[in-house]
Amino acid sequence: MSEQTISFTALDPSQEFQSGDSIGAAVVAAAHEPLLPDEILVISHKSVSKAEGRTRLLGDVVPGEEAMRIAAAQDRDPRHVQVILDETEQILRDEHGVLICVTKHGFVCANAGVDASNTAGSDEVVLLPLDPDASAVRIRNEIRDASGTAPAVVITDSFGRAWRVAQVDVAIGCAGISPIEDWRGKLDRAGRELAATEIAIADAVAAAADLARSKDSGQPFVRVSGLGRYVTKADGPGAQVLLRQAHQDLFRR
Amino acid sequence: MSEQTISFTALDPSQEFQSGDSIGAAVVAAAHEPLLPDEILVISHKSVSKAEGRTRLLGDVVPGEEAMRIAAAQDRDPRHVQVILDETEQILRDEHGVLICVTKHGFVCANAGVDASNTAGSDEVVLLPLDPDASAVRIRNEIRDASGTAPAVVITDSFGRAWRVAQVDVAIGCAGISPIEDWRGKLDRAGRELAATEIAIADAVAAAADLARSKDSGQPFVRVSGLGRYVTKADGPGAQVLLRQAHQDLFRR
Repeated sequence: MSEQTISFTALDPSQEFQSGDSIGAAVVAAAHEPLLPDEILVISHKSVSKAEGRTRLLGDVVPGEEAMRIAAAQDRDPRHVQVILDETEQILRDEHGVLICVTKHGFVCANAGVDASNTAGSDEVVLLPLDPDASAVRIRNEIRDASGTAPAVVITDSFGRAWRVAQVDVAIGCAGISPIEDWRGKLDRAGRELAATEIAIADAVAAAADLARSKDSGQPFVRVSGLGRYVTKADGPGAQVLLRQAHQDLFRR
Repeated sequence: MSEQTISFTALDPSQEFQSGDSIGAAVVAAAHEPLLPDEILVISHKSVSKAEGRTRLLGDVVPGEEAMRIAAAQDRDPRHVQVILDETEQILRDEHGVLICVTKHGFVCANAGVDASNTAGSDEVVLLPLDPDASAVRIRNEIRDASGTAPAVVITDSFGRAWRVAQVDVAIGCAGISPIEDWRGKLDRAGRELAATEIAIADAVAAAADLARSKDSGQPFVRVSGLGRYVTKADGPGAQVLLRQAHQDLFRR
């Protein structure tokens, strides 16, 4: 096998998005070189959420009893906690000042993905997209409409992890990419069966893309080349297949 | 901010390692272009473990009572289970046919990182390096000795995750790289304080590098360019700082 290089480039300039903006058109406008059909566009979810109007103003939120109780115990704004609860299917942990939630999509993450940073006003919080896989399909179509080319799309957020410190970006939505590469039952080059090995391609792409931008740069788009073997014409199953089903999950209790 | 590209290239050719081999010398020999001091060399742990003699032959293993019990319940080779137990500090889960262990290093992973695939004989299993951060320092020194240049070194393994399907590579050892980028308390470009954001740089580099090789290619080395801002002259704290301390961990029970 010869040397093979994959590369990640953050697009410039950055842009603040408003409800109704076309993310796909913005991606095409931001690309210096024409997008290619075997590339992957990685998009941080915050721009997607803003374009979809998935924000709330804390001034409009009336906290309920549970939010008041949690906020008092954790010394937090009860309105912010209420927004988190509104996005939450199940609270896994409520201690050490953090809320680890199962979101209504099935993501397990802190604060149900509700984020106050980088928003246009200090009163605004940003939610996760309602259906990030559908968002990825829509953005892919927007890119196709604006450029004639349909690279894969991965929408990301930064999640903490059990057992390990700090965050890495993961894929919360995707279209046109095989999210998982399945090596189970295949043979290695010595002819032996590989140990159970499924690789979370979309998550690795998300983690890698975040390295190409700086947190304070506001660059929402990263283009990825060299991974055409994972890009598919069909939109595919989306990032939902990366979620472990509750009955198979050993760490939901 | 202008466009910035990071790139990952798997080195060719691949090589099987024996106890006593110099990984650093092999890296230098495999690099087509001279290594640069602001690059990162990502090395899958299996080659490191073999060079360090961190393998065992199942024929030499006498399983104890606990290994026999677990092996019977999980329909596994009791000698393999005994090797896993020998590497384990604490078993977190023993169900669904899997063993989730805290290793003696403090890693939380399936089977304490003991792996039977890709080994020279079907009777041989590969353990994690005894001290992967020390391994990374040694390899960095070997590279420096062989080339005059000391890029950063990251040693990786593929770990499963709580809540999410499939594996991604993480850093189990590193030298010459800042493993975590800490944005807590810093301001975003609009002047607002960022939400708690520590980024696990070394883990993201590990995940990304795995995309540059194919599981059956046997390519243990990936060189990374464009991330010089994380490369340090000092060997630094190593990947141990990526491990959440038990008393701060919400998912050890």
